[in-house]
Amino acid sequence: MNMNWLSKFAPLPEDFSGIQTPADLARWELSNWLPEHSFTLEPDPSMGDGFRISGSTITGGETGLLYGAYALLRHMQAGAPLPSESCPRYPLRMIDCWDNMDGSVERGYAGRSLFFEGNCFAYHPDRLRHLARLMASVGLNVLCISNVNVHEPAQGLLDEFLPDLSALADLFRPFGIRLMVSVDFSMPIRDGFSSADPRDAGVQAWWQAAAARVYREIPDLAGFLVKADSEGRPGPFTYGRTHAEGANLLARALRPFGGVLVWRCFVYNCRQDWRDHTIDRPMAAYDTYQPLDGQFDENVILQIKNGPFDFQVREPVSPLLLSMQKTRMALELQLAQEYTGQQIDLYTMAPMWREIFQDLPPERIQAIAAVSNFGRDENYFGHPLAAVNLFGFGLLAWNPEITPEEIVSQWILLTYDFLPEDQETLGRWMLASRRIYEKYTSPLGLGWMITPHTHYGPNPSGYEYDLWGTYHRASRDAVGINRTSAGTGYTCQYPPALRQRYEDASACPDLLLLFFHRLPYGFRMKDGRSLIQRIYDDHFEGAEQAARLLEALKGLPFPEPDRQVILDRAVRQKENAENWRDVINTFFHRLSGVPDALERKIFD
Amino acid sequence: MNMNWLSKFAPLPEDFSGIQTPADLARWELSNWLPEHSFTLEPDPSMGDGFRISGSTITGGETGLLYGAYALLRHMQAGAPLPSESCPRYPLRMIDCWDNMDGSVERGYAGRSLFFEGNCFAYHPDRLRHLARLMASVGLNVLCISNVNVHEPAQGLLDEFLPDLSALADLFRPFGIRLMVSVDFSMPIRDGFSSADPRDAGVQAWWQAAAARVYREIPDLAGFLVKADSEGRPGPFTYGRTHAEGANLLARALRPFGGVLVWRCFVYNCRQDWRDHTIDRPMAAYDTYQPLDGQFDENVILQIKNGPFDFQVREPVSPLLLSMQKTRMALELQLAQEYTGQQIDLYTMAPMWREIFQDLPPERIQAIAAVSNFGRDENYFGHPLAAVNLFGFGLLAWNPEITPEEIVSQWILLTYDFLPEDQETLGRWMLASRRIYEKYTSPLGLGWMITPHTHYGPNPSGYEYDLWGTYHRASRDAVGINRTSAGTGYTCQYPPALRQRYEDASACPDLLLLFFHRLPYGFRMKDGRSLIQRIYDDHFEGAEQAARLLEALKGLPFPEPDRQVILDRAVRQKENAENWRDVINTFFHRLSGVPDALERKIFD
Repeated sequence: MNMNWLSKFAPLPEDFSGIQTPADLARWELSNWLPEHSFTLEPDPSMGDGFRISGSTITGGETGLLYGAYALLRHMQAGAPLPSESCPRYPLRMIDCWDNMDGSVERGYAGRSLFFEGNCFAYHPDRLRHLARLMASVGLNVLCISNVNVHEPAQGLLDEFLPDLSALADLFRPFGIRLMVSVDFSMPIRDGFSSADPRDAGVQAWWQAAAARVYREIPDLAGFLVKADSEGRPGPFTYGRTHAEGANLLARALRPFGGVLVWRCFVYNCRQDWRDHTIDRPMAAYDTYQPLDGQFDENVILQIKNGPFDFQVREPVSPLLLSMQKTRMALELQLAQEYTGQQIDLYTMAPMWREIFQDLPPERIQAIAAVSNFGRDENYFGHPLAAVNLFGFGLLAWNPEITPEEIVSQWILLTYDFLPEDQETLGRWMLASRRIYEKYTSPLGLGWMITPHTHYGPNPSGYEYDLWGTYHRASRDAVGINRTSAGTGYTCQYPPALRQRYEDASACPDLLLLFFHRLPYGFRMKDGRSLIQRIYDDHFEGAEQAARLLEALKGLPFPEPDRQVILDRAVRQKENAENWRDVINTFFHRLSGVPDALERKIFD
Repeated sequence: MNMNWLSKFAPLPEDFSGIQTPADLARWELSNWLPEHSFTLEPDPSMGDGFRISGSTITGGETGLLYGAYALLRHMQAGAPLPSESCPRYPLRMIDCWDNMDGSVERGYAGRSLFFEGNCFAYHPDRLRHLARLMASVGLNVLCISNVNVHEPAQGLLDEFLPDLSALADLFRPFGIRLMVSVDFSMPIRDGFSSADPRDAGVQAWWQAAAARVYREIPDLAGFLVKADSEGRPGPFTYGRTHAEGANLLARALRPFGGVLVWRCFVYNCRQDWRDHTIDRPMAAYDTYQPLDGQFDENVILQIKNGPFDFQVREPVSPLLLSMQKTRMALELQLAQEYTGQQIDLYTMAPMWREIFQDLPPERIQAIAAVSNFGRDENYFGHPLAAVNLFGFGLLAWNPEITPEEIVSQWILLTYDFLPEDQETLGRWMLASRRIYEKYTSPLGLGWMITPHTHYGPNPSGYEYDLWGTYHRASRDAVGINRTSAGTGYTCQYPPALRQRYEDASACPDLLLLFFHRLPYGFRMKDGRSLIQRIYDDHFEGAEQAARLLEALKGLPFPEPDRQVILDRAVRQKENAENWRDVINTFFHRLSGVPDALERKIFD
C-alpha cells in the first residue's frame, strides 16, 4: 500500500476492533512510533478539537487528543513546529467528494470512487481507513462522500442505503471524521409529493422525518450539502422562493440533531447568450446572495468558491465572501485539478491559497471545504505529488496563516527520504508549479480557453460562443471584458480598497489585468513591455520551465513506483505546455499580427 | 404507422407467409392497387434487376419484376415517367447503417437502432418490412445493418449471432434486399490468433472458414464491409501490408460464394499536429490508394466518400474517384445529416448529388452506397421531409441522370395530398434547402467550424488546434489553406480540366473558393464584392431564408403529426441559423475589423 505522507508511520493494524475512538487511535499511533516511551492522554472535553502538549502529556478533547498526537508525530518525523497549545481556526474542515454511486467521480483524476461501484457501496475497509488516517493526520474532520450533482440512486443515501452509510460512518468515527451527505432539493418529489416548495407544510414535514430517520442511524452526521438551482439542479427558484427559504427549510429539519446545512452558492445563468453583454457571470453569486444576508438560519453555512468563476488558475477573491455580514460562510477550494492540469501537470496549490487569504481575512469565514482529489488509484491521488494538496489543505484549514513553504517542506520530509539538496530542489519546483502552469495557459487572469467539457489542454475559443458566460471577446485590436464601474460594474461588488485596486488598469496587478480590463495589445505593462509581448513571453517561459521541470524531476531519487508515474506525467506536462504555448501564441498572433520581439517560433 | 412516401399504398399484410419472393411481392402490390386489373408477370432471369413493361405485362428478372411493379405504381400515383424498359445503372445500390448492437446509432438522428438493442437483435418485423418496402420501392438492394466501427459484440455477427442474421436476411429477401455485414479486420485475434496479418496462412484460412460458415446460413449475403486503419480501427498497416493485400485477403475468402468485399477509403492521419503544415488531410485518400490501382482483386470494391474531407456541405469531388483506372469503386454518400443539420434543419440532398455527378462521370464507378438516415422514430427519419433523401438516393442509384426536381416532385406527390400550388411551394423550399444551410454555416467551401463531437451548431475554431486536419488558419489578414500547386499541391491530384478550374482563384467557383485558396478579406469576388462582404451577405441571407422557410412551412397543409414535427424543427433551424449567422459574422468581424457595408447587426 502506498502510504503517501504517512510513509514513515506503521501500517494500521488489520484487526481494528481495539480502536473505537480517536483517543484509542492516538494511543495506538504514539505507542507504535515510540513503543518505549509512555505518553499520558488527558481528556478535556471542553477543548474539543484543541490540544495542549506538556512534557509527555497531551491534553485535549476526544479529537484534540488525536490531533495532538499527530502534531507530535509530524514534529518528530518532519520537524514541524510543535505548538504547546493549538486549536483549529475552523470547526468544520470539510472534504467534498464528487463521487457518483455508479463508481465514477465527476472531475476525478485519480481513478474511480473509493466508496461506490455499480450503484452500491463498494469499498475496501483498509483503503478507507488509510484515507481516513491521511485526513485525520492533518486535522480534517468532515467528509461528504457523494456528489453535489445527485444522480440516482444517490438520493437513496437518506433511505435504502442508510444502513450502508451508517456502517461507513462507523468506519470513519475513530478518525474523528464525521460524514456529510449531498441531498437533492427535489427529494420529496421522488417520494411522491407534487412539489418541493419550502413553504409547503408537507415538504417541511418530509425533511423533518428524513433528518430524524438519518440521525437515528448516524447521530453524529455533520449535516447535508446542497447544490440548488445550479447547472440544472432543482431548487427553490422553481417555486418562486429565495435561497434563504430553501436553505432554512433543510436547516430547520437538521437543527434538532445539531446538523448543519451547507448551501453552495454556485448559481449563475448557464444558458447565457454570448451575444448578450449585459450579463457578466462573475457577478451572479453576489447578486443572488448578498441581498439575503441576515435571512439565513444559524445552522446554515453558505459555501462559496474562492473566486467568482470556477476554480481557474487565477481569480480575484469572490466579492460575496467579503460582503456577507450576518451569514455563516465556508470557503470552497478545489483540490481536484479540473482546470489546472488534472493531476498530470504538477500544480501545488498552497501558493494560491496564500494569495486568497491575503485578500480574505480568515475571520470572515466560519468553515472551509475542498473538493477531493483522491480516488481508487494505488497512490490515491493520480500524481504522487498531488498528495500535497490534501495534506496542505488540512494544515491550512487548521491554520490559514501557514506558509506554502512550511506545507511543502513538511510534506516532502514526511513522504520521501531525500537529502537536503533534493528536498530543496523538489520544494522549489513544487512551489513554482502553479506559476508555471499559469504562464503557459490562458494569460493574465483571462481564464478559460480550455478544451470544452474535458477541461484539459487549450482551445482558445472553445467556450467563446457558448452558453457558459466565459468569454474573452478577443478581436484584432483588444482582448478581455471591462469589469470596472465603466464596464459591467463587477468591481463595485468589492469593498473600497479592492475596488480601487482593480478599477484602474495601472493599479491592477498584472496577473489579473485581463480579468478586469479590456485592453489593446499595445497596452504598456508596468515593466514597459506591451501586453502582447508579455503574453508571448509568459508562454515561452512557461513551456521552457515545464521542460526544465521534467529534467529536474528526472534527477530526483523518487522511489518506485512514484518515479515512473511522476516522470510519465512530467513528459505529458511538457507536451501539454508546448501545445498551450503554441496555441495561445498563434491565437494572439493571428489576431494581433504583432511579431515576437525576440523572434521565437510562433506558428502560422 | 407513418407510411412516408408509401402513404398511398395499402399497408403490408400482417400475415406475410404468402409472400416469399420479390415476384410474389410485385404481384401483391399490383393486385392491391388495381384489384380489378390483371397484370402478367413474365420472369426473365437474364434481365436481373431490369424490367420491360408492355401493356399489362411486366417482364424482368426476379427482382426486375418487383422494380417494374414499383415503377408502374410510382407512375400511376405520382406521374413518374414510366420507361418501357429500364435497368439500373449500378448493380449494388447499398445502404450502410451505422447501428451498434447496444441500440445506439453512430451519427443517427432518427432514434435508436431499428435492428438492435441491449447487445441483441431486437426488432419489430412489421417495422422492418415497411423499411424494406421503402427501400425496394426505389430500387435499393443491399443493406449493411452494422456500424463500420465494429464494437463488441458486433464481431459476433459472423458467429454467435449468425442465426439472428440469417432470420433477418429471410425477412428482407422478398424485398429483393440482400444483407451485408461490417467486419473487423482484427477478428482472427478475437478468435485466439496472435495476428491478423494478411500474409499469415492461418489468418487466410480463418477468413475462408468464416466466409464458408456465414454463406452456409445466408447464401445470398452481399458481402463484407470494412473500415480499416481509420480513426483507430485495426488494419493491414499494423503488419506493414498494403490495403490491397488487406482487401484481397477478405475478398478471396468471399469469392467462392460470390460475395463482394467493400473496402472504405476513409484513411487519413487523425492524430495530425495542427502546427504541421506539410500534411493536408484532403490529400490522404488519393495518396494511400491511387498507387495501389490494379492490385485489387475483382470482387473488391473501394468505397470512396464523395468529397476528400467528410460529408461537408460542399466539397469538390474526391480526386480518387477520378483517378483509379483498374479498380472497382463505389461512391459513398451520407444521408444522415451529420454535418448538415442533423434532421433538424431542412436539407434536401439531391441538388448536391447532381453537382457531384456533374464532375464524376457515372461510368467511373461501379456501385453506390449511402449511410442511412433512418431509425426507430415513428416516422423513421426524425424529420418527415428528410425521407426524401432515402427516396432520392434510391432513384439516383438507379439512374444518376435523374434531376433534383424530378426527385422532389415525385416524393411530394407520393407523400402528401397537396394542391399544385402547395406542391410547388414545398418543392421550391426543399430544393433551396441545401443552399440555405450552406449560406448560414461555414463560408465558401471552408467547411468545419462546427461544434466538436456533436457536429451541430457553430464553433469557428473548435477543431482549429486539434488533431483532425480540418484547419481554416484564419488570421486578421486572410483565411483558408492554399491547396494549389503553389500550396499543398492538392489540386495536382485532379485531371487537367478540374485542376485548372481549381488552381486559379479567378476561375475557381465562388462556392469552393476557400476550399482551395487562402485569400485576404479584401479579395474581389467575380461580382465585385469583397470576400468579407460576401461572407457577411451569405450569412444574413441564409438566416433570413431560414426564417422565411419557417413561415412557408407554417402555411402548408401537412397532416399531423408531420406538421408539428416539421414546425418544431423549423423553429430550431431558424434559431440555429441565427446563431450560425452571428457567430460566423462576429468571428470574421473580430478578425478583419471590416464593418458590414449594409450596417446590419454584427455582435462584438
